Amino acid sequence: MREQVFLYDTTLRDGTQGEGISLSVDDKLKIVTKLDQLGVHYIEGGWPGSNPKDMEFFRRVQELHLKKSTITAFGSTRRSGGSAENDENLLKIIESKVGTVAIFGKAWDFQVQEALRTTLAENLQMISDSVRFLKSHGLEVIFDAEHFFDGYKANKNYAMKALFAAEDAGANCIVLCDTNGGTLPHEISEIVKDVCGKVHIQVGIHCHNDGELAVANSLIAVQAGARQVQGTINGYGERCGNANLVSIIPNLQMKLTYTCVEEEHLKKLTSIAKYVHEIANQTAPSNQPFVGRSAFAHKGGMHVSAVLKHPQTYEHVLPELVGNNRRVLVSELSGQSNLMFKAQEWNIKLDKKDPTSKQLLETIKIKEHEGYQYEAAEASFELLVKQSYGSLKDYFILDYFKIFIEKNGDESFSTEAVIKLCIQDEIILTAAEGNGPVNALDHALRKALEQFYPIIRNMHLSDYKVRVLDETEATASKVRVLIESTDGQEKWSTIGVSANIIKASWLALVDSVQYYLMKNDDVIELVYPQKTNNSLGVSNH
Amino acid sequence: MREQVFLYDTTLRDGTQGEGISLSVDDKLKIVTKLDQLGVHYIEGGWPGSNPKDMEFFRRVQELHLKKSTITAFGSTRRSGGSAENDENLLKIIESKVGTVAIFGKAWDFQVQEALRTTLAENLQMISDSVRFLKSHGLEVIFDAEHFFDGYKANKNYAMKALFAAEDAGANCIVLCDTNGGTLPHEISEIVKDVCGKVHIQVGIHCHNDGELAVANSLIAVQAGARQVQGTINGYGERCGNANLVSIIPNLQMKLTYTCVEEEHLKKLTSIAKYVHEIANQTAPSNQPFVGRSAFAHKGGMHVSAVLKHPQTYEHVLPELVGNNRRVLVSELSGQSNLMFKAQEWNIKLDKKDPTSKQLLETIKIKEHEGYQYEAAEASFELLVKQSYGSLKDYFILDYFKIFIEKNGDESFSTEAVIKLCIQDEIILTAAEGNGPVNALDHALRKALEQFYPIIRNMHLSDYKVRVLDETEATASKVRVLIESTDGQEKWSTIGVSANIIKASWLALVDSVQYYLMKNDDVIELVYPQKTNNSLGVSNH
Repeated sequence: MREQVFLYDTTLRDGTQGEGISLSVDDKLKIVTKLDQLGVHYIEGGWPGSNPKDMEFFRRVQELHLKKSTITAFGSTRRSGGSAENDENLLKIIESKVGTVAIFGKAWDFQVQEALRTTLAENLQMISDSVRFLKSHGLEVIFDAEHFFDGYKANKNYAMKALFAAEDAGANCIVLCDTNGGTLPHEISEIVKDVCGKVHIQVGIHCHNDGELAVANSLIAVQAGARQVQGTINGYGERCGNANLVSIIPNLQMKLTYTCVEEEHLKKLTSIAKYVHEIANQTAPSNQPFVGRSAFAHKGGMHVSAVLKHPQTYEHVLPELVGNNRRVLVSELSGQSNLMFKAQEWNIKLDKKDPTSKQLLETIKIKEHEGYQYEAAEASFELLVKQSYGSLKDYFILDYFKIFIEKNGDESFSTEAVIKLCIQDEIILTAAEGNGPVNALDHALRKALEQFYPIIRNMHLSDYKVRVLDETEATASKVRVLIESTDGQEKWSTIGVSANIIKASWLALVDSVQYYLMKNDDVIELVYPQKTNNSLGVSNH
Repeated sequence: MREQVFLYDTTLRDGTQGEGISLSVDDKLKIVTKLDQLGVHYIEGGWPGSNPKDMEFFRRVQELHLKKSTITAFGSTRRSGGSAENDENLLKIIESKVGTVAIFGKAWDFQVQEALRTTLAENLQMISDSVRFLKSHGLEVIFDAEHFFDGYKANKNYAMKALFAAEDAGANCIVLCDTNGGTLPHEISEIVKDVCGKVHIQVGIHCHNDGELAVANSLIAVQAGARQVQGTINGYGERCGNANLVSIIPNLQMKLTYTCVEEEHLKKLTSIAKYVHEIANQTAPSNQPFVGRSAFAHKGGMHVSAVLKHPQTYEHVLPELVGNNRRVLVSELSGQSNLMFKAQEWNIKLDKKDPTSKQLLETIKIKEHEGYQYEAAEASFELLVKQSYGSLKDYFILDYFKIFIEKNGDESFSTEAVIKLCIQDEIILTAAEGNGPVNALDHALRKALEQFYPIIRNMHLSDYKVRVLDETEATASKVRVLIESTDGQEKWSTIGVSANIIKASWLALVDSVQYYLMKNDDVIELVYPQKTNNSLGVSNH
């Protein structure tokens, strides 16, 4: 029989304290829906009364009709010297209409005296009054003991009194917070064990990652008796972040003997982690454990040949169990086995003794030296391979393009692209506007191609990334542009490198279109456009 | 008396197995120099014979005359069925002229039979022969027991035999590798303790971060008796990376009772971590523990007011001890105390009751909603504040700019910017070329300004970053441009947001120049240009 560990997500509250993390109410509601699907038990929505956005959230979240998750509000104990009944902060919590609340109180004598500037006795009374008041309104009350571990080390007796004050007042759960994130695993283990032997209600753990130990500390706390784990998706949070639930869940469930979510929901971890990165507008770290793009990516030639025989030789869990997948990387460290594996994926027969294969490896090395990285641009890589073997068609040939950008005074701004292509032996000249130079160029290219390859209407660019390669040269330095495209079903990534951002973008744009046309070569119907040739033999569209 | 823990850095070897990490020989030598200054005991340079780059490294590193660090080579035990004396891989190690070598051998019976495809007995012989051979050439030999923890759990008896084979053959140190990175802290603790009780030479630990546990596992291994820790700077490495030495060092030395490096060298951690990120061309994660830009950044208003009173309220260590510094962030979550703190830095007197202060907070919220983030663009923020208080001069007024980009066929590419400004009541029309549109615009703007503000020649852009805000819209979506500028002494960052990348760049560019002129307002000499007015009253330069 597996023991249940309850998950308490604070991405929407503590997570947004992280630098660069900002979520609109719509963003928060989208994330709530995903967390409910994953089966997270508690979702902390915000701090009612701290700003109008949080109040709007608590109003609108009631319309979502969640299946599994309980929405909770966050707040502090009553103010020093006041009464709980008249405390604006506590009243706002009631007003938010949640069924569960997490209120935090001080458990470190130093904090009480120096940050709160009140007496040790009054602080205990604040905890007690606040818990009792919220309980009397029918709420489930979770007490977050702020700075508990620092408090326990400084004045164990007082830290425990803070917990007992909450327990005696009727709290349902006590959460031990490593607020500053500096506590070590062996300390967590000893202290949580001690607390679990002394309190009679559920104990939870809330870790921060300032020592790069938050995941380990959370696991160790559970092994020592904690049954609620607080954290955030992807470990967002103040300073170095909160404990990362995306790593804690599979560790608890796949490696230890606890249950957090339903077994089949583990497969959603990768997509949910990515989804939240997107909503929060954060670049997903490629080396993120369990769910990162590189988490099951094999680069060393020796690793690749072994993992292809037996995944467990270089994988701690099977990637598909957490919704991720195995990847084989092509780079200068690659042995031939990586190249062979890639080629197999594309139904290309490579011969180890073939001079073209050797030439291809050489070309890859040169391109990587220029700044190309095919790891993140597999479509461009496939085009490169096909080109080496002479099996790539030219769907169009560029004669020229011109881009005009104009800004007048403070207001008007225009961007136009003119493009001249040769397609199927016809000369096409067309123009389009756009939001920026690359957008205008994309529009003009598609406008020209659509007439010949109507299938192009099914695809569009879904992501556009720019990386400055040699940052010391600023705007004069080389840039790497990555473009991701989709036809609604599949996604593919292409790359371009140049000192000119427009040229780099053009290279990636051309690869993106070429790749799609190549993949659909068998279904492309050539629809010749109505000709309106002028004297130069140019079609104007 | 503090116990010594030896550091073994494998950034140059295991680190480069990470996706997207690639280091030239020059890069490697630069990193070696920094690691030597930090006082890392062993630096693994590469695998001699695996590629020509590594051989060049071992030749050139001898010219560096390191003070503290020992350069080591990596390699495997001899091939199955061969002899150590004729093993090409082992001979290359001798040839590399290092004094210390780390050779890895299999400690997991499954790996021996399935990946190596040899017998259990032959594998032990391979370990024994290889260690003995290298010792006979006078080398210090470190034996890396690959997959030791998985091997120990599968067949403890055989895993231990692999260690004894190395010990009996004269190895100086045995390193227990969690190659797949999936071992849990409590397993590390038990297994390392058991091994330390059975072998009589130094024991080391080599962790990977697949469970987000590498730092904790390394600390716990030291507490269980290990005295060598292997890892990489910033945790680079295959899949999810190796154990991050940048976090391990301060944890061992500042929170536990071990010595790794000289006390005063801890202050170098932040600069070395950043340096290696730059050399490896990786974006430094802002939330990286100890050394990240956000590691001591305070965003919540309540945290800010407390940490200004007493740093230890929300900081686990003092930032200056690891060479980092405290930051206060300005964002929609900010209370007035953050704004007041910032204003103090700039000698602006804000009054809490002042309507302009309230208006400013409102403006910040609106701007952040549009996609501005002043956290990373403090110069733009300062301009915004000064503007609100009416204390900002207009150094120039834009009439218009136009950019022309042209690409012909596969080869020629031209980018030109034309700009018309009003400076000191004069109309200036000028043009410049560039590597790309923003570079051309930068050149044209400076060309126009230089004549009036010669001091502008002292500054240049040092970094240019583009972030797509709503990635689902690709090239049509909003972009945020961050520009970093420097005058050789100071650096400042500015921001622009727009759906048009050129407009966003322009906004950041203008802020960058305005900021520099404002800072140097007292030293600006107005040098009026020679006038060559045409009939329209326009100066052409």
